Amino acid sequence: MNSFGEKLRFSTFGESHGKALGCLVDGIPAGLKIDEDYIQSELDRRKPGKSEFETARKEADKVEILSGVFEGLSTGTPIAMIIYNTNQKSKDYTNIKDVFRPGHADFTYFHKYGIRDYRGGGRSSARETAARVAAGAIAKLMLSELGISIESGISEVNGIKAEKFDYVYAKESIIYALDKGVEEAQKEAILKAKNEHDSVGGVSRVVVKGAPVGLGEPLYYKLDGVLADAMMGINAVKAVEIGDGVLSARALGSQNNDEIREGGFESNHAGGILGGISNGEDIVMNVYFKPTPSIFKEQHTVTTQNREVDFSLKGRHDPCVAVRGTVVCESMAALVIGDMILLNMGSNMEGITKYYN
Amino acid sequence: MNSFGEKLRFSTFGESHGKALGCLVDGIPAGLKIDEDYIQSELDRRKPGKSEFETARKEADKVEILSGVFEGLSTGTPIAMIIYNTNQKSKDYTNIKDVFRPGHADFTYFHKYGIRDYRGGGRSSARETAARVAAGAIAKLMLSELGISIESGISEVNGIKAEKFDYVYAKESIIYALDKGVEEAQKEAILKAKNEHDSVGGVSRVVVKGAPVGLGEPLYYKLDGVLADAMMGINAVKAVEIGDGVLSARALGSQNNDEIREGGFESNHAGGILGGISNGEDIVMNVYFKPTPSIFKEQHTVTTQNREVDFSLKGRHDPCVAVRGTVVCESMAALVIGDMILLNMGSNMEGITKYYN
Amino acid sequence: MNSFGEKLRFSTFGESHGKALGCLVDGIPAGLKIDEDYIQSELDRRKPGKSEFETARKEADKVEILSGVFEGLSTGTPIAMIIYNTNQKSKDYTNIKDVFRPGHADFTYFHKYGIRDYRGGGRSSARETAARVAAGAIAKLMLSELGISIESGISEVNGIKAEKFDYVYAKESIIYALDKGVEEAQKEAILKAKNEHDSVGGVSRVVVKGAPVGLGEPLYYKLDGVLADAMMGINAVKAVEIGDGVLSARALGSQNNDEIREGGFESNHAGGILGGISNGEDIVMNVYFKPTPSIFKEQHTVTTQNREVDFSLKGRHDPCVAVRGTVVCESMAALVIGDMILLNMGSNMEGITKYYN
Amino acid sequence: MNSFGEKLRFSTFGESHGKALGCLVDGIPAGLKIDEDYIQSELDRRKPGKSEFETARKEADKVEILSGVFEGLSTGTPIAMIIYNTNQKSKDYTNIKDVFRPGHADFTYFHKYGIRDYRGGGRSSARETAARVAAGAIAKLMLSELGISIESGISEVNGIKAEKFDYVYAKESIIYALDKGVEEAQKEAILKAKNEHDSVGGVSRVVVKGAPVGLGEPLYYKLDGVLADAMMGINAVKAVEIGDGVLSARALGSQNNDEIREGGFESNHAGGILGGISNGEDIVMNVYFKPTPSIFKEQHTVTTQNREVDFSLKGRHDPCVAVRGTVVCESMAALVIGDMILLNMGSNMEGITKYYN
Repeated sequence: MNSFGEKLRFSTFGESHGKALGCLVDGIPAGLKIDEDYIQSELDRRKPGKSEFETARKEADKVEILSGVFEGLSTGTPIAMIIYNTNQKSKDYTNIKDVFRPGHADFTYFHKYGIRDYRGGGRSSARETAARVAAGAIAKLMLSELGISIESGISEVNGIKAEKFDYVYAKESIIYALDKGVEEAQKEAILKAKNEHDSVGGVSRVVVKGAPVGLGEPLYYKLDGVLADAMMGINAVKAVEIGDGVLSARALGSQNNDEIREGGFESNHAGGILGGISNGEDIVMNVYFKPTPSIFKEQHTVTTQNREVDFSLKGRHDPCVAVRGTVVCESMAALVIGDMILLNMGSNMEGITKYYN
Repeated sequence: MNSFGEKLRFSTFGESHGKALGCLVDGIPAGLKIDEDYIQSELDRRKPGKSEFETARKEADKVEILSGVFEGLSTGTPIAMIIYNTNQKSKDYTNIKDVFRPGHADFTYFHKYGIRDYRGGGRSSARETAARVAAGAIAKLMLSELGISIESGISEVNGIKAEKFDYVYAKESIIYALDKGVEEAQKEAILKAKNEHDSVGGVSRVVVKGAPVGLGEPLYYKLDGVLADAMMGINAVKAVEIGDGVLSARALGSQNNDEIREGGFESNHAGGILGGISNGEDIVMNVYFKPTPSIFKEQHTVTTQNREVDFSLKGRHDPCVAVRGTVVCESMAALVIGDMILLNMGSNMEGITKYYN
Repeated sequence: MNSFGEKLRFSTFGESHGKALGCLVDGIPAGLKIDEDYIQSELDRRKPGKSEFETARKEADKVEILSGVFEGLSTGTPIAMIIYNTNQKSKDYTNIKDVFRPGHADFTYFHKYGIRDYRGGGRSSARETAARVAAGAIAKLMLSELGISIESGISEVNGIKAEKFDYVYAKESIIYALDKGVEEAQKEAILKAKNEHDSVGGVSRVVVKGAPVGLGEPLYYKLDGVLADAMMGINAVKAVEIGDGVLSARALGSQNNDEIREGGFESNHAGGILGGISNGEDIVMNVYFKPTPSIFKEQHTVTTQNREVDFSLKGRHDPCVAVRGTVVCESMAALVIGDMILLNMGSNMEGITKYYN
Repeated sequence: MNSFGEKLRFSTFGESHGKALGCLVDGIPAGLKIDEDYIQSELDRRKPGKSEFETARKEADKVEILSGVFEGLSTGTPIAMIIYNTNQKSKDYTNIKDVFRPGHADFTYFHKYGIRDYRGGGRSSARETAARVAAGAIAKLMLSELGISIESGISEVNGIKAEKFDYVYAKESIIYALDKGVEEAQKEAILKAKNEHDSVGGVSRVVVKGAPVGLGEPLYYKLDGVLADAMMGINAVKAVEIGDGVLSARALGSQNNDEIREGGFESNHAGGILGGISNGEDIVMNVYFKPTPSIFKEQHTVTTQNREVDFSLKGRHDPCVAVRGTVVCESMAALVIGDMILLNMGSNMEGITKYYN
């Protein structure tokens, strides 16, 4: 249960303070040019410690390819990648060894497994998402050859909302802000929380451009369903919208339907998905991150022996996990779209006959 | 790709205007008492034509068990159930044979498959969800033996929000309203839209009570991720929240964390899930349905030959799909929880040793 | 766990003496012409009661398509088929209600599930294979459009071996004998066993012609591995060979290697598979069926209460299950090859780019 | 498609002459004592270069655990293991860069993927099985805690058959021979072939002891079917038998049925499996390996440009792959049984209720 995807399937391994993290990417077609610098550059976007808006833990997140690539090309066999941990400070965590941090997975892991790698959250740490980004980078390389791109940015921090979505600007912004106009206010909100030993939530907006019509396998591997799983499964995510999302539920049918003309759809309330299948428009989703549960204020909690304690966390944490999380959203979206691209190939006899002739 | 679940896996088949709908439920443990009347009663909750708030299509939705049950007990083999269609009026649909209805899956199915069963939307019709409810009823029977119950109701219609969540009242309400205080206003909104040949959206709130700690398989079959897939995959759903959902992204960490005391959690912002695993609290989710795309106002669209037409739909449709949809949400939740109950059994050696001794 | 296949996946349901058997075939591409007469003709080849070499139970095995086909073409949605049981004589089985028949699954089902549908073996009956044949017929229709055919016949009965493999003759032979020269002796062996209230084993040889190079997904969904699973999973099968099989283990490398010339391979010891992937030669396998465990001689056994009894079976049974089993082998082979055809389509970027352009 | 198993699922990666091989083992329950020395000792049994009966390539096959283990216990998260390659002599393979070795996967990989890592067979090399042995060792540790053991040995080399099966002796034998009485003749056959630049086939016999009744998920994840897949998928395997296998097909029902008495079965022709489910007897299988295709005699073949050449292979190869292959058979059997142990836990309500109470 540590794999995702059907035909393009990746698996990850590793803990926050273990020897290494990594992933296996299975199902990547042979003959894809594997640009290692690009993969590293994606990891660099997610890596911690780049600014005051992020955790102070510094990790090079240097990725190494172990298999599946020969003379620069994918061979059709699984691509394994490894990222060694270097900057563990496990000592920081000895004080939480026997305590469940509120808002964290400590409580549930302990009760499910009867054992818990408490160092930095172990497997439940968002550090695991580095492996997703490595896998996602490969998927992006594949999608790129088919003219599909994935972009994202932060649309909201602590309730401060972007009024425009400038994905090009977001690439440069240190907090991946989509709207330069509200970026400063968003930054201030993050720093204010940080200074008060607290944290803030945020929202990532992700868009897939250039996807063909037909992606998604109804009825139980729908594009929107699988994207929702992919996004909700990212650490700290509590809500996912496709297209207008929540607002759709407050609109009339006559407002929400996207009418169609010769050249395509007249609007995109649907976020590019109808009946669980892509319709050729931009695929748009919003991903809601809760505030980092790691805060430094004193909180009520219990020990593993169910003894009540008042507890103040130490360590290094992101004041707003949505910021680096947006890179992870892109990666997961790329992996889903890549999977759907492969799955869609068997949809009709015409395509199959063409393929085999 | 017409199956859902890993260990408790169901598959469905059938089209809106085909001979029959049905499902296979695989993985139900042997020895479960199968109460056919209960299954039928669940289908009755979802079946169309019960009131002016629903489509006028009347279907008995009489379910028949074909296999997997012997002398009233499940045998551990697949339980097949069938529901024959009886009230097809396929003629109603000949006028949409060559036209893509805005907001529907017509466009995407046609382009993906090159062929489309246009009668009532074929496979993409919400009528397919009858099969989910049959499957879900079996899952509910299983969960009931373990002390787990699933309830739901309509929390919002056209922006009119419930202020309290009374799941007992919802069972009696003809629109499954959670809040008697706003029910009339919600009903009026539905009828107003209906009279204006339009439709409204709505929100279903689902709660799972009595689930043990430990459900969910990190990191890629998390309880919240799979619930999100299950809900987003229901026809017309555009957003899914777990716990506080969207609001979490606007809270501070110190507000959003659920502190813990000896007796359990002091609040439930998390909606019963931490790190993708149930924490023993109520599992809460909100499911946002767009307004029914089938409206009777004239709309812009194109034909299968991409010729522009202005088009007025005929037929019989729900003015608010969220109403009957809430029953489907419960069913899907039951199927997910049932699956997780089975998957969780291999989590630790202690449980395995106990099982085999 | 009642499904088989990854991209072309079928599921079956039903018991020997239940209301109906059936299958869901998921993943069949849209636009395939579905010839119902052909499907029925395949079922007719497997159906019981056609001659003295088979069980006396007569079943029309009339198959009905419930979904997934519109105006004669597959729509890309699941094809459900149903076969109603008509000639149950469950009374025949009341005497085995509390007894485990030697060689049967009675013992294992009872202990695994704690409950057993004893009527005719319930789910473990070879009658279930009717559903496989229905599914296989659809797969064969798909393969046929790609120039791939699957044939089989009986190569051995009770140790009497065919010396030549005439698949055309096998189609006409009442015991599907591959070698007219030994057919009479094989028939006599069957009847002799039958008259002595005993049964005989036999061997089916299956060949796939016209398969392209490249089918099979190394390393863990290899063509030979999946065929072995498919064949071994057929009731009463105890051994599976690919190509020279057992004999390969007794040959030298210099004898067993298939050398290659411009026009192809000079021999086919490998049975058309190298490294788990088809090499363009005929794919050949031998499937070994044990003698029917249902014999009428008195045997030692125990009751469900573990009380020893000497027991004589009644009922209607095939004296040689391999005969009708060979049709099932073909069906399973077709389903495997069909699955591999679809899976193979994502193997390299060249094919993907061609597909999407 | 580089994963195996449903609930205990392992994935492997790596090529013969790449940086590293490795595996991910997912689904191992938490709290299992992970004995690294034992894992290494299993790898040592399979590692090459231990005697003149094996390839001269020397690899330490030193395995390192990267994740999933904390303070000596499994944590329930994926266990990643890595084995670095050290003794690559890729130069040996430059002469086969453009040539398809007869009997090898060169031809099929090239045509499927359009690219081939020719160094030592790349991914198709039996060297990959080191990763299976690492994974299998973990499975064995788990099974051991439940009283289940797996043993094997060589029963046949080049047609020279063991007359008794002494699994204890096999552990000491340098060729894992089951029968000391024929061991010398078997060794001679191997060396004779080796000296003549040829190779021989062989047979591994595997037995699982102590498995409970009830393992196997009918009808499409049967114990015998999955074992057949697991064994047939091992490099060079061409036939798999369960129990009496081929001989069953030549027996009468009255000979082949295993009669039952109070204390259990009176014989074990079935090899411990009835209806695809374990019956509590020893699970027995025979696995037939073809002779190593790598021989040093001149052979006919073609280049990647389909030009005919006469070709003499160089390099280092096992004269009889069955010898080291038997360790791999054990590992695969352990992984299958482990998977089935976990899957079986949801079979009936009684067990589930017991588990959750």
